[in-house]
Order: sequence, then C-alpha cells, then structure tokens
Amino acid sequence: MIEPAKTIACFGEIVLRLAVPAGEQPLQSPRFDVHVGGAEANVAVALAALGYRVRMVSALPEGPIGDAAIAELRRHGVDTSAILRRPGRVGLYYHLPGGPARASEVLYDRADSAFATAEADEWNWDAILADASWLHLSGVTPALGPQSADAALAAARTARAAGLGLSFDGNWRGRLWERWDADPAATLRAIISEASLLFGNHRDAALLLGRDFSGEGGERRREAALALLSAFPNLDHIVSTARHIVGSDRHELAARIDRRDASCQTEARVVAPIVDRIGTGDAFAAGVLDGLFKGASIEDSAARGLALASLKHGLRGDFAPFSAAALASAAHGANDVAR
Amino acid sequence: MIEPAKTIACFGEIVLRLAVPAGEQPLQSPRFDVHVGGAEANVAVALAALGYRVRMVSALPEGPIGDAAIAELRRHGVDTSAILRRPGRVGLYYHLPGGPARASEVLYDRADSAFATAEADEWNWDAILADASWLHLSGVTPALGPQSADAALAAARTARAAGLGLSFDGNWRGRLWERWDADPAATLRAIISEASLLFGNHRDAALLLGRDFSGEGGERRREAALALLSAFPNLDHIVSTARHIVGSDRHELAARIDRRDASCQTEARVVAPIVDRIGTGDAFAAGVLDGLFKGASIEDSAARGLALASLKHGLRGDFAPFSAAALASAAHGANDVAR
Amino acid sequence: MIEPAKTIACFGEIVLRLAVPAGEQPLQSPRFDVHVGGAEANVAVALAALGYRVRMVSALPEGPIGDAAIAELRRHGVDTSAILRRPGRVGLYYHLPGGPARASEVLYDRADSAFATAEADEWNWDAILADASWLHLSGVTPALGPQSADAALAAARTARAAGLGLSFDGNWRGRLWERWDADPAATLRAIISEASLLFGNHRDAALLLGRDFSGEGGERRREAALALLSAFPNLDHIVSTARHIVGSDRHELAARIDRRDASCQTEARVVAPIVDRIGTGDAFAAGVLDGLFKGASIEDSAARGLALASLKHGLRGDFAPFSAAALASAAHGANDVAR
Amino acid sequence: MIEPAKTIACFGEIVLRLAVPAGEQPLQSPRFDVHVGGAEANVAVALAALGYRVRMVSALPEGPIGDAAIAELRRHGVDTSAILRRPGRVGLYYHLPGGPARASEVLYDRADSAFATAEADEWNWDAILADASWLHLSGVTPALGPQSADAALAAARTARAAGLGLSFDGNWRGRLWERWDADPAATLRAIISEASLLFGNHRDAALLLGRDFSGEGGERRREAALALLSAFPNLDHIVSTARHIVGSDRHELAARIDRRDASCQTEARVVAPIVDRIGTGDAFAAGVLDGLFKGASIEDSAARGLALASLKHGLRGDFAPFSAAALASAAHGANDVAR
Amino acid sequence: MIEPAKTIACFGEIVLRLAVPAGEQPLQSPRFDVHVGGAEANVAVALAALGYRVRMVSALPEGPIGDAAIAELRRHGVDTSAILRRPGRVGLYYHLPGGPARASEVLYDRADSAFATAEADEWNWDAILADASWLHLSGVTPALGPQSADAALAAARTARAAGLGLSFDGNWRGRLWERWDADPAATLRAIISEASLLFGNHRDAALLLGRDFSGEGGERRREAALALLSAFPNLDHIVSTARHIVGSDRHELAARIDRRDASCQTEARVVAPIVDRIGTGDAFAAGVLDGLFKGASIEDSAARGLALASLKHGLRGDFAPFSAAALASAAHGANDVAR
Amino acid sequence: MIEPAKTIACFGEIVLRLAVPAGEQPLQSPRFDVHVGGAEANVAVALAALGYRVRMVSALPEGPIGDAAIAELRRHGVDTSAILRRPGRVGLYYHLPGGPARASEVLYDRADSAFATAEADEWNWDAILADASWLHLSGVTPALGPQSADAALAAARTARAAGLGLSFDGNWRGRLWERWDADPAATLRAIISEASLLFGNHRDAALLLGRDFSGEGGERRREAALALLSAFPNLDHIVSTARHIVGSDRHELAARIDRRDASCQTEARVVAPIVDRIGTGDAFAAGVLDGLFKGASIEDSAARGLALASLKHGLRGDFAPFSAAALASAAHGANDVAR
Repeated sequence: MIEPAKTIACFGEIVLRLAVPAGEQPLQSPRFDVHVGGAEANVAVALAALGYRVRMVSALPEGPIGDAAIAELRRHGVDTSAILRRPGRVGLYYHLPGGPARASEVLYDRADSAFATAEADEWNWDAILADASWLHLSGVTPALGPQSADAALAAARTARAAGLGLSFDGNWRGRLWERWDADPAATLRAIISEASLLFGNHRDAALLLGRDFSGEGGERRREAALALLSAFPNLDHIVSTARHIVGSDRHELAARIDRRDASCQTEARVVAPIVDRIGTGDAFAAGVLDGLFKGASIEDSAARGLALASLKHGLRGDFAPFSAAALASAAHGANDVAR
Repeated sequence: MIEPAKTIACFGEIVLRLAVPAGEQPLQSPRFDVHVGGAEANVAVALAALGYRVRMVSALPEGPIGDAAIAELRRHGVDTSAILRRPGRVGLYYHLPGGPARASEVLYDRADSAFATAEADEWNWDAILADASWLHLSGVTPALGPQSADAALAAARTARAAGLGLSFDGNWRGRLWERWDADPAATLRAIISEASLLFGNHRDAALLLGRDFSGEGGERRREAALALLSAFPNLDHIVSTARHIVGSDRHELAARIDRRDASCQTEARVVAPIVDRIGTGDAFAAGVLDGLFKGASIEDSAARGLALASLKHGLRGDFAPFSAAALASAAHGANDVAR
Repeated sequence: MIEPAKTIACFGEIVLRLAVPAGEQPLQSPRFDVHVGGAEANVAVALAALGYRVRMVSALPEGPIGDAAIAELRRHGVDTSAILRRPGRVGLYYHLPGGPARASEVLYDRADSAFATAEADEWNWDAILADASWLHLSGVTPALGPQSADAALAAARTARAAGLGLSFDGNWRGRLWERWDADPAATLRAIISEASLLFGNHRDAALLLGRDFSGEGGERRREAALALLSAFPNLDHIVSTARHIVGSDRHELAARIDRRDASCQTEARVVAPIVDRIGTGDAFAAGVLDGLFKGASIEDSAARGLALASLKHGLRGDFAPFSAAALASAAHGANDVAR
Repeated sequence: MIEPAKTIACFGEIVLRLAVPAGEQPLQSPRFDVHVGGAEANVAVALAALGYRVRMVSALPEGPIGDAAIAELRRHGVDTSAILRRPGRVGLYYHLPGGPARASEVLYDRADSAFATAEADEWNWDAILADASWLHLSGVTPALGPQSADAALAAARTARAAGLGLSFDGNWRGRLWERWDADPAATLRAIISEASLLFGNHRDAALLLGRDFSGEGGERRREAALALLSAFPNLDHIVSTARHIVGSDRHELAARIDRRDASCQTEARVVAPIVDRIGTGDAFAAGVLDGLFKGASIEDSAARGLALASLKHGLRGDFAPFSAAALASAAHGANDVAR
Repeated sequence: MIEPAKTIACFGEIVLRLAVPAGEQPLQSPRFDVHVGGAEANVAVALAALGYRVRMVSALPEGPIGDAAIAELRRHGVDTSAILRRPGRVGLYYHLPGGPARASEVLYDRADSAFATAEADEWNWDAILADASWLHLSGVTPALGPQSADAALAAARTARAAGLGLSFDGNWRGRLWERWDADPAATLRAIISEASLLFGNHRDAALLLGRDFSGEGGERRREAALALLSAFPNLDHIVSTARHIVGSDRHELAARIDRRDASCQTEARVVAPIVDRIGTGDAFAAGVLDGLFKGASIEDSAARGLALASLKHGLRGDFAPFSAAALASAAHGANDVAR
Repeated sequence: MIEPAKTIACFGEIVLRLAVPAGEQPLQSPRFDVHVGGAEANVAVALAALGYRVRMVSALPEGPIGDAAIAELRRHGVDTSAILRRPGRVGLYYHLPGGPARASEVLYDRADSAFATAEADEWNWDAILADASWLHLSGVTPALGPQSADAALAAARTARAAGLGLSFDGNWRGRLWERWDADPAATLRAIISEASLLFGNHRDAALLLGRDFSGEGGERRREAALALLSAFPNLDHIVSTARHIVGSDRHELAARIDRRDASCQTEARVVAPIVDRIGTGDAFAAGVLDGLFKGASIEDSAARGLALASLKHGLRGDFAPFSAAALASAAHGANDVAR
C-alpha cells in the first residue's frame, strides 16, 4: 500500500511527560519520571521501530531540553531533520498514576510552546513531504491553537495534493480545545476532508457530523463509519477501538475497521498487567497502519493494532518501540519465559 | 453532626515504618522505605486532607527524627502543637511485604518510646480539647502499656465531660497486649464506655463482652452490634468491615454500620491492584467519620469509608491524604485516563 | 530419607543475571538489576535456608566479580569451599521482563566461562562427596559443553558408587545444546542412569527414550513416568510440574510425583502476582526434596514443592531463601497482614 | 529588632525545580529530581525553621501540583493561608548540574504562571500584613512582569505605611527582565525606596543609581553602599556577599554589612563539598535577618548569614530548613562525627 | 604472632545503621540506607576479608531482621555460630550525613537490645574460645549496661586464662555511658587489665588513669602510652590515631604505636574524597592487627592500619571487606584506572 | 583541514560497561550501572555532538542488547548503518570505582565478541569510506585478536589509498594483548605507517621503536615525538597528555602537540570533582581533532582537547556528547550558576 523506500511523515508536538511515580502522590518522592511523547511522535517511533523510514515534523526550542527530546526520537531511528528549533517553551504534561478507585490523570501545561506558537508557513511543506508517501496527523494538533490548526491543514492539503496517503487520529482532547476561541468540528472537518484513513469512533462521528448514532455496539459503529465515509469521500478506512476498564491494571480492548465495502470487529483482548496506559492508542494506530501498509487484510491489520497496543501497555513511557518480530509474536498472547 | 469551625483531635502514637521493598527480603537491597504512620495519625491526616481542622495529640523525642515525623504531619495540614517533645525513642515497626503464598508482616519495635512512657497528665487535656468537637482514639494506645492506657482513658473522660463526640477504633493488636501485665477487656471497656462510635466487629464484641456470636455473616454482626449498643449506652454507631483476601494484591472489602434503629451493609468492593495495605482501616474510619460528620446517611457513610479505604490501598505509605474531590470521584470505581 | 548431619552437594554453574528493569526495554534506564543464580545454586540456597547443610560445587574466576558471587551464596549459608577459582569468565545471562503480549526472555552469554571450561578431574569428587548423603545435578550442566558433560557424569558416578542419593532436574535448554556437537539424549541417559530421582515430564521422557507419549494429561504423564522408571532402574521418583500461563503476572501450577507403586497429582495452585518467574522450578525441586528428605508422603512433598515455588514467584532474584517456617505457612495461601 | 509574636511575611513566586541528576545530561536517566523553591519562599522556610512565625504570600493554581508545592511549605512550618489559588500554571525552572569546566545552569519556564498573571489587588495587603512586623521581597518578583512589579510595589508601600521593616534582595535576573517591556532600574528604585534593608552589591548599586563604582574590593563596596544609603533614606543596612569559585564543588564566600555609621566584612569561608548551590543566597539572607532580628551585631549577623549559606550548600533542594541549634554549631566549621 | 589455623573471636553488639541519604535531611526522601555494623563486627568482617578465621560472638533476636544481619556477616565469611538468638530488639542507630559547616551525627537507639539484655553467662566462653588465639573487644560493649560490662569482663578473663591475645579498642561513647549508673573508668580498667593491646590515645589514658597528659603531640602521646603500659602490665602495645578534619569530605589521618621499648608515628595521610567515615577506626584496628599478627614491624603495622582505614573512607557501609591484595596496593595511594 | 560535508569514520568495538555504583563493592547493591562505550565509539559520539557527520564502523550481535547499544549511538547522532549484525556476543567490561587509596579498575570480558570474531573482509571498506574524509582508529582494536588486527590494517590502508586523513590513538591495553599470540609492536607499526596523526607519548614511542627516551618532561616527549615523526613519514602530528593523580576525584591534565616544525605544551589543568574518568582520553582526542579539523592552531587544538576532556570527567558514562557551545565555554573554567 505504500512504497517502502519512501518516508512516512508525522506532524505534531513533542512533549515531555512529568510523571509522578506509581503508587504515590506528587512530591511524595522528590522526583518525576520523565518521558518524551506526543500522539504523532509516538506513532513515528512505533513505525520506525517496525522498520519504516519515518520523519518527525515538529518544533522545539533551542537548548539542552529540546536537544534531549530530539535525541530520544533519534535513538529510535526517527529522522529529526524537520524539527524546527524556534522560540518558545517545551510543552509538558503532568501524569498522575491511577490505582484502586482512582483513574490516572493527565494535566496539560503546553500553552505557548515552541510548537503551538509556530506559524503554518514556518515549515516548508513541499520540501518536507517531497520524498514521503504517507502523512500522519492527529486531533491534538489543531486543538493547540489557531496556528497549529492552520499548520495541520496546510500539511494535510500539501499531502493530498502530492498524492500521499493521510491518516488522522481523532484523539479528542476537550481540555485543549476549551483554551481558545475554536470551532472544533469545522476545523477537524477541513483536515479530515483530505484524509484517507480516520481513527475515530461514533463519538468522533457525532462531533464531526453533528448527529447522534443511537444503535448498539457494532451496529452503531458501522452506522457512524458509513456516515463518515459518506461525508468525507477521500476516506476509505475508519478504525476504532473499544476499551473496557476492568481495573486500573486490567483493561479489555477490541478493534474495528470499516471500509465502504467491508468491516471487521475483533474479540476483546485482555490487557494485563498494565504498566503504562499512555500512548497505547498511538501504538494501536501504528500497528493498524503497519498492517495496511503491508497489504494485510483488515482483520489482520486490526489484530496488529491490538497486539502493538497490548505490548505498549507493558512498557513505561509514551513510545512503543517494538520490533516487527516482537509484534509478530505478540499475536500469540502470554507465554512462559523463552530460553 | 460536628461544627466545622471546631477541631477534631486524634490521640495516639506516631511511629516510623521501616519497609522492606516489595518483592524483596530484608537487606536484599541495602535500604528501607520509610513512612510516618500510626493508627490515629493516619485518621488525622485523612481528615485534614478532606478539609477538617485536625489536631494530633502525641509525644515524640526531641531531635531530627522526631522533627521529621512532625513535619510529615504538618505537610498534610495537621496541627502538631499538641505533640509533646520528651525523652524516649521513636516507636518503629518493620514491614515485610507479602506475595504469593506469603502474608505481609508487621514487626513492632515500639517499646519505651517517648509516647509509651508518657504519663497521662503530661498532656493538659482540658486545654487540648477546649476548641474541639470530636476525639478519635484507637485500641492501639491502651495496648502500649499502663501509662498509655491511663492517658487514653483520661482523654476519653475529658472528651465526654466536655460534650465531645468520641470515636474508638478497636484495632486489636495481640502482640502489643502480650508485652505487659494487662487486662485488655477491662481496659478497653472503660474507654469505650465514653465513646459514641465504635469501629469493631463481632470478634471485638466477643473480647469486650466475654461471649461469642455464633450466627452467620450479617446476622452475627447485627447481633454483636446490638449487644455492644446495649452494653455501652453512650455508643450510637458500630462500624465494621469484612475483608476477603483473594490474593496479596487483590482484596474484597465490605462495610457495615449498625445503629440501634437501623443498619446497612454494603456490597463487597474489589480492591486491586494493592500497593500498600497498611493504614487502609484507618482510611476507612476517616471516610465513615466524614460521612457522619456531614450528616450523610449510614449507607453513604459506609460507602465513603470503602471509597477512601480503596484509594489508600493504591498509595504507598500509611497516610491517605486524598482530597474531598478525589473521595467523591472514587465512588465510581476505575475509569480511563482523564485528560 | 537422608541423614541430617550429612551434606547435600549441588554441582553446577553459578551465573550472574543482568536484568532489565520491569516495564522497560534494555538501556531505557541506564542500569541492570543483578542477581546471582544458576539452577543448581538455586536449589543449594533454598535447601540451606530450610536448614540443611549444603555444599555448592562449582568454578568461578579469581577477582572481585567471582568473589561477589561466592559471597552471595555464603550469605545464604551455603558452603562454598568446593568452588574452584580458575581461569575463564563469569557466565552471564540477560533477562528481559515480560508483559502483556510478551513473554519474558533469557539470553545466555555463558560460553567459555570458568565453569564451562573446567575439566571433570579438576574437582576431587571423592573428597568433595565424602561427607555427603545426596547430590543434585541438572540438565543445564551437561548442556554447557563436553567438559561439563563429563564432569556431571563423573559426579553422578562417584555419588552412586558412594551410596548417595542423586536427584537430576531435566531443565531442558535447547539453546545451550545447539552450541556444540552434542548428543543430548545419550549424554543425559548416562547421567540419569545413576540417579534416584528425576525432575522431568513426558517431554523429557520423549527426548530420553526416543518415543512419544500420546495420552491426555495425567494418563500421559503416568505412562511416561512408568517408561522412565522402567528404562532407568535406579530411579524411584519422577517429579514434574504443569504450568498454565494465565497472564505474565498470573500462572497456575500443578505438581505430580510418580513412583513405581504410587502417584499423586495436585490441584493447580494460582500464583499471583508474579514478581520474578526465574528460579521457580528450582525452588519447586528444593521443596519436593525437603519433603522426601523428611520422609513426608509424596502428596505432602508435592505440596511443599508448590508452596516453595509459589513463594519464589514473589521474590526478586534467582534464589528462594525461605525459612522452614515460611514454607510451612505458605501452604495456607494468602492471608491478611500479620501483626 | 522585631517582635517575636509577630509574623514575617514573604511575598514572591513559588516554583518547581526540575533538576537533571548530578553528573548527567538531560534524560540520560529518565527522571528529574524535583524541588519546591523560589527566592522568597526559600527565605520563608529558612526563617520558619529557625523558629519564626512566617507567612508566605503567593499564588498557585488549583490542583494536585499546586497542592504539593503548598504542602512542602507547610511541612517546614510556613503559614500558607495567604497563597492564592487562581488560574495559570506552576512556574518551573530546569536545573542542569555543573562539573569540571561547566557551570551549572538554570533555564526558566515560568511565564504565564498563576503568580505572574495575578494582579496586585488580588491580595488583600492590609489584611495579610495586619499581624506582621516584617516583609521580605526580592528582585525576582518585579522582574516577572508588570502585574508582579505592581504587586511588589503595593506590598512594599503597605508594609512601610503599616510600620513594618522591609528587606529587599536584589537577586538580579537579566533573563527575566528581558522578557517584557520593562524599566528595571526605575521599577526597583520605587520598591527599594520603601525598604529598610537591601541585599545587594556594587553591581546592584550601579544598576540602580546609573553610575559605576570603580574602587577595589571593600572600598568599592563601601562607596556603593554609602551611595545607596544616600539615595534611599529609608535604608539602614546594605548587605552583600562575594563569592569566589574555586571549582564546581568548592566556593569561598565572604559577607559584608554596611550601615551609615559602621561596616564589617568577614573573612572568606571555604564551602566544600557543594551538593547544591541553588538557594544559598536566600539562606544567607535568612541568616543575616536572624541576626538582626535578634539584635546581634552586624559582625555576628554576617557570620550567621555565612553559616546558614554554608549549611545550605550541603543540602539538596532550594530550602535551608536548619534549626537554630544547627545554625549555632555551624559557626565552628566541620567536625568529626558526633556520637 | 598468632597461629593462622586458629580463630580470632570478636565480641560485641551487631547493630543496624539507618542512614539518611547524603545531602538530605531525614525523610527528605522517604528512605533510609541500611547497613549492618558494630565496632567489633566491623573488625571481624575486615579480618575475615583479609583471610583470617573469624568468629563473631554476639546476640540478636529471632526473626527476619536478625536473620538478615547475620546473613550480612556470613556473606563476608565470618563464623556466626556463636551469635545467640534471644529475646529483645535489634540495636539501631540513625546516621545523619555531614556537609559544609555540619558534622555528621550518630543517634543511638540501642537500649534493650537482645545483646544489651543478655547476661554474661548466656555465652559459653570456654567453648566459644576453645579454638581461638585472639579476642577483640571494644569500649562500646561495657558502655551498654551492666550485663554487657559483665560479659565483656568474663570474655576478657576467659581469654587471658586460656592464653589468648586480647585487643581492646577504647571507642569512648559518652552518650552510652550516661544512660546507666556506671563507673566507666573502673569498668574499663578491669577489662584492660586483661588486654595485651590497647587502641587508645592520651584522652583514653586520662580517663583510665585519672590524670592529664599535658605535653604536645607525640610527646604527650608517648607519655600517656608509657603510663598505660605501666598501669596495665599485660599490655604490650598502645595504638592510636590522630585525625585532622580539613572538611567533611577530606580528613588527614596519622597513626602511632607505642611499645615499652619502641614507638613509631606515621606521617599524616590525606583521605579524600570521603564517602563514609563510620567504621574507619575499626578498619584501622583490623589493619594494625593484621600487621602484628603477621609479625610485621610496628611501622608497617601502623601503615597497614592507615591503609585499611583510608580504603574504608571510600566505601559505603560500616564494613571494610577489603582483600589482602587491595590492602597491599593501598599503601601506594591513588593511581590512575587499572586496565 | 577536512571537508565539512564529508564523513568522519570511526572503526572499533562497541562495548557495554557494567559499573559498580560509586562507593560500593560489587553486588553491595544488586545492580550495575550500564553505559555504552568503546574508545572509537566515544570519539564518534563526541565529534557528532560537536556537529560533524560521523559514521561508526563496528559489529554487534542481533537481538535486543545489540539493538540497545546501537540506539545509544544513534541517540547522539552517529550514523550506525555500517555496524554489522553478526554472530557473537556483546563485549563487556566491569568497572569498579576507585576511592581513597584505591584506583578504579576495568576488568575486560570481551573475548569472542561479535566484533572480535569478525574477519577484515566482512566490512566493505571501499564503500564505507567512499564519502569519508577522515578515519579514526585506536590501539584497542588490533589488541583484540588477529582478525581485528587485520581489519584495522585493512581500514587504515584503504583510508590512505583513498586520500583520507587517519588518526590513531595508541590506547595501550596490555591485558588485551596478553590474551593471544601477538607481536604488538609490529602490528601497531604497520597501522601507524598509514596514519597522519598519532595520539601517544614517549612510552608508546618506546614500544613502537624499541628504544627508551630518557630525558625529562617536555624534552623527553619532544625527542620521542621527533623519533616517531622520523620513523613514520606519513605522520604529521603527535599528540599526548600528561596526567597527575592528586586524588581519586582530582587530577591535573596537560596536553602536548608535536609537529616536525613546531610543538606546544599546555599548562596543567585541574580537573575536579571527577565523576567518571573513563572515556576522558577519547574526549581529549575528539577535542584536538575538532581544533585541527577547523584549522585552529596547535595551541588552541590542545586547549580544546583539554576542555573536552575536563567536561567528560564530570559526566557519567563513556561518552562526551557536549555541544560546540559547551566546549567553547569550557575554556573559561568553572563559573557560578548561569541564570
């Protein structure tokens, strides 16, 4: 589905996670665990680890903290040459771990970052996408402010014009959209019009299309997917997950892919014990893309997404840098020690 | 039920926990994790975190270790002005973590502490309770030795004489009572005679009343509660929990409140994954008191107790410093990450 | 079954585990957790902790790393006087933790170790076993190379000639046998001919006897055990486990012991939460030997094996240094905190 | 010099330090050590630890990170009731440790904090200072932006009008003033006009008075101090330090106090080995204030400042919570272990 | 000087150190570093590491904490068969690290330990010393209380009667002697009367002999040594150190040995950077004993003491488990990396 | 001196350091700190961090440990495409920290590594060096065994034939050469014949030329340098350092560069406090090369070498990834905190 010699571009903000250690409240121990992440950077790292040529397009400030964030991407084999260095701060979020009777929590502190204050034309989109065959975006970027929304749209339009495939992960973040005078639905519709693949469920569809989908389970999801495929003629795949929270360290995850002519829905997969839930949706996206890029069936692509998401739940940090071999063996579930 | 501008006093020993890291034997790694605790101090911290004015009444030696223990209480907003500084050592306990086929273990090393060697009249009870509306005691204190037993009784009598409410948590600690020439039942009966609320179950009742309660489940608990309410006319609430150990990281907890005219018993609540079981009974007590202080129903008060106890199981350390908002949302069980 | 004043000898390699921290990939944090282990050393430590006189027979290089490994055995009360110091390196293995959808993995780096390059006659077997009543070997040792295979055979023959009991744990390690020009079945048969007790299941039997056992469950195991007991007349006990992997932190374990005249098979025991699966088979072996040494029934011996294996799953490191009291109380499953 | 029953108020921002571990570059280990600080909060904590009644006046956002910062102040006995909770973020700074050939570095990320965006009239200065006898400010606050500059001036004027003493620590932070359209000299002059004590040297004087002081060493400092005392008639003490950097873990520190009628200058005190240089100027300020508050001579007050600063260099974190006893014994320099 | 096949016995309490991490105040991080120590145990470990047969004679309570302390001695090759298990607690001390302007501090919490409450006749001295050629005691033991003082005296008398050499390290601990109704000088004199070697300086001499030694430096030390040798005719060596505190991480150490007929005094040796000063005097004692045991000159013996003490300053923990090779090369001072 | 658009190639083994934590003996804490290094890889990382295009030529085994080592190089911007993946193990070394009276120690465990067992022709030298302008080698590589010696020679000859500059760092490692039947002098002479720049002093010269250089200090070094420049006509620079060990955390370092027509020798630079001495010689080499590559004088180039070496002493790990800006400011020695 994509040419292997070509590059996959991911555009979005790179952020630092400041994480309170598990089982503690902030400053109970005088330290934060720190991870580099960002919805699109997470996809970039996962795809690079699977063997793809991946370019991260972003912006970070000059200086040692920005350098360290870039080095983490480079460590995982991502091309960082299209990361602008410009004024502004590094976007952050605090992560408070969950536990019995307590969901984990993400507190954003990413306003006025080097990325969020960059204008759309600071990136030379034609040059950046010249050797690319795919662009991945997410709903986090347009939520960051008008400049970022413009930039995401510019990227999407350049990609479509150049004949690239474009995946868009809804990633609804209400707390971000509230911070500025935004029209989320209109903004997202403009970008998604350019996309070929959407990660989103009936709730995303309701937001985008301004109507509810009242059926049950798979039926409702199919109805929402068909409505999206109808509203956005460039789309050919709608991909979604359903997550059931059994406990803070045990979730059940199922995946669904809808095309105009076909659909599939997986069994729920038990994911336990959970070490880190952050970034698991991005790992899922990378796993599905891997399947589709390699021409796998939608059933197999959905299974890859679930497998990579499962692996990610067991790894500290935002990234899912698992090899193709690890992904392949993850299909079989837990085994005894290999030796 | 209590006047918000007034103070809740908690009287008891403040101890240090020396904890072997989870999954290890002592000195497998050359360190102990250290936490400040004590049954009554745990209640004090939990109530302070919920927004109450709370005063800890205790004794600690002069010097940097006593200072550090006091600072931990102050950190959580507890008034530490009624903590005597006097000769003696800081009471300690070693904590050995549990695991498959192995219960966690508490080894006390608290003899001759500054608290246990303090005479009842070293605290000026009239002054300490002058602005208070409630006093909380537990069965740990009279178990520490004759001085502490006298002090607990003096505190209880002063409280009753001054019209304060008095809660008493049975907290049976056989290993402590064995260490001196004690009559536990008589000692406890004298204190409980002054109490308005007792945390205790049919086993506590059997010890106090010298008879067994042979029924099944809730029936037996009701019978024991009525016997206690009959034997101690000042009591108006008997509160208890039932804990089922599924595994070392998974318990099920149910709560019961009995009044003369009413009773309620909750469903069992699954508590998993457990990070630290110590102090969960004290968190339960604080949650129930919070409900009753605010005039909530016994059903709601029992649920608050369970919710705060559940939260505590996920937090390292003896304390349960959760905000009223965290307690409110804990009623709903586990959720996905909030962002 | 054995004389308490006599020594149990264990012969095998002592290795260092370089363990990636749980929930991480290698070098995600710049550290390895390090544990001393080795199948036979693990049995030695477990038996010493249970109160037996135990001598480890092995080889390590001179220098501080070898010294540190020896000190760890000495710490647990094992007699280390029969550990040769000779040229060569310390055998290592990397341990990568498992998680959702990912088995933990052991990567050996033990070629050319001081042990693997030692000739059979570097140990004075007559002297080493002079005061011993039992010898424990495992299939890891002959897999290491021709010298080690010879040494294991020499040890086994000396033991039998001197009237010692000999236990042999199959411990099949395909990755090790592949590294040299070996005939595993013939090599193992020669050693097992001298043994009185074999830890092994129908798969070990198939390898040793060159035939399959096609029945179901217990029937197949009984058939395989009888075939082994028939092929190796010195054997009187065949001991095996069956492990069901529910998830990376939850296994179910059952044990079986076959004699010519009797057999027993336990219920599956749930083992959760798992901290460290490595060394649990060795802990099982030590628990069974403890039962048999003390003249317990095969049912009770199998239960002790399961109990010690369960305890080990909750302890970081390769060793299972649990006291006889801990083993006794482990029979009862998880309990609430003891205090 | 001050009434002990009265309160010392400190006004300024409370920030989090995100510290790269010593001997590492950012993200070399995936963690930051985290400390709560802020020039004025550091003085507040040091004075509270010395036994004074201290109130911190500041602003922090609602939520668990702000809560944790407040708890750290409360831990050290500081009254936190005058810390506003309001919109905005928590101010941060990154700290990169120094080493051979490399100075340690502070990178601010404190724009748009809850404090920096608070208007002067959000604090009720009359009420906050009603029971106070002293106010401490520093040059960091007016550097944060026009709102903070106004607030500092309002605080200073209210303090003078109410007859309080006012200390002002120059704390020149060029990187902060550059971020907005500021007139540093005029802004600072307005505040210092209200002050009775200034921590500042000839470079501060040059900035404030628009002229250079060209003499050598003490002479230049005396000349600058007299010029300041002449320009600001309310000032009666000018206090300064001179720091000589021998190496990244070894400094030499001398102190000077100038009054109109007298002056003193200490010998240089060797400070080694240095654990954490941040906050040592604030500890110095607290030590000098302690001396002056107790009516000590300027020589003794300067020595206390140096002693508290020396102690702080050996303590990780921004705070210097040393007891009066520790301060007293610090005058004698290093000793052998006390036991 | 001693027969290598014979055993060196060390008698004294084994304690746990609860150490605040360097650069922190208690509970700044929620942990203590834990080390096993005790003046005589430290000598035992150092001598065992140098290759001697060493038996520790002591008492510890039953249970996992006592077990862990014993295991640490066993790890270093010390014979622990003469450590009684009896009622009582494990003796503790808190260690607060020093820094600029702050000495490190030891706070004892060792009253009522299993050792301190043991009667002299609980140890079978004749049996314990039957295969020994030397006994080492220190002034810590008699300071612990009347039982311990009696036990030390019983041990000393048995040793002398059996013809063993006896070394006694003064180790003056005023804080311990103050805790009971003791006559330190008389108690110590009785024990030292049996000793052949005393570690002590002119201050110890002054205490023991009730007179001052007013000379300067070496002269005063010689005079005190001769007075001791005259007062205690069994003594043949007086060994002492002089420590100059340059800073908390840099000391200078010199050693002196006096016999009736000869004496030597070393140059001061610079010891830096200091990681842990605790136990360095015990390491010195072990180094000197090693020299004398091997028949080295007093000059060489003093140098070995200094070398082992220097090594110990660089090692965390109370023990100095350095090999004979490490001690030999320590004579040469610091070198570049060996590879 | 080199074309910036061209690549610098470094050829050598990539190894893992297993480091005992500072102030401890092996397994005192159950962990090793782990760093990726290797003399030539260290130069590669330092030059990449300074902004050069750098390619590491090496070999590592397939699998997660090799992957992690490669990722660490990639993190610092080194091109890892010429690192073979082939059978063999990852080379290791243990690092034991030094302290007072104890040099730090390196214990190699690198035999039979994937690198050491690779034949010279497994790398396609023409292709690898096609776009390169410089090759860096060191004496570690030929010391590893005949295959590595051949490979180093093949690389050197290809480089010279292609007109590249070639630097060779003597890095004498006696312990490695001893392990096989080698003629170190002849082997090294063959390689150095192709080199343009040699890092080596009079001791290297003595080894290579078979004669001693008996003068003093600079004179001896000049004489040795001239002899080398005469013996190896392709050489144009001889670069060396002189290190004086003041203590384990304080060294003094001076540099010297000799050309046929000129020479320079720097003052000794104090380097303290030392965090990690490993890799400092490689950092020095990179700093000198940076100067020469940019056409700086030999004085300035020597100073850059010293500055980068000084910086490295303060950084944990084998690498010196300092930016050009950090290197520039390191010339000025220690400063106060920058903010």
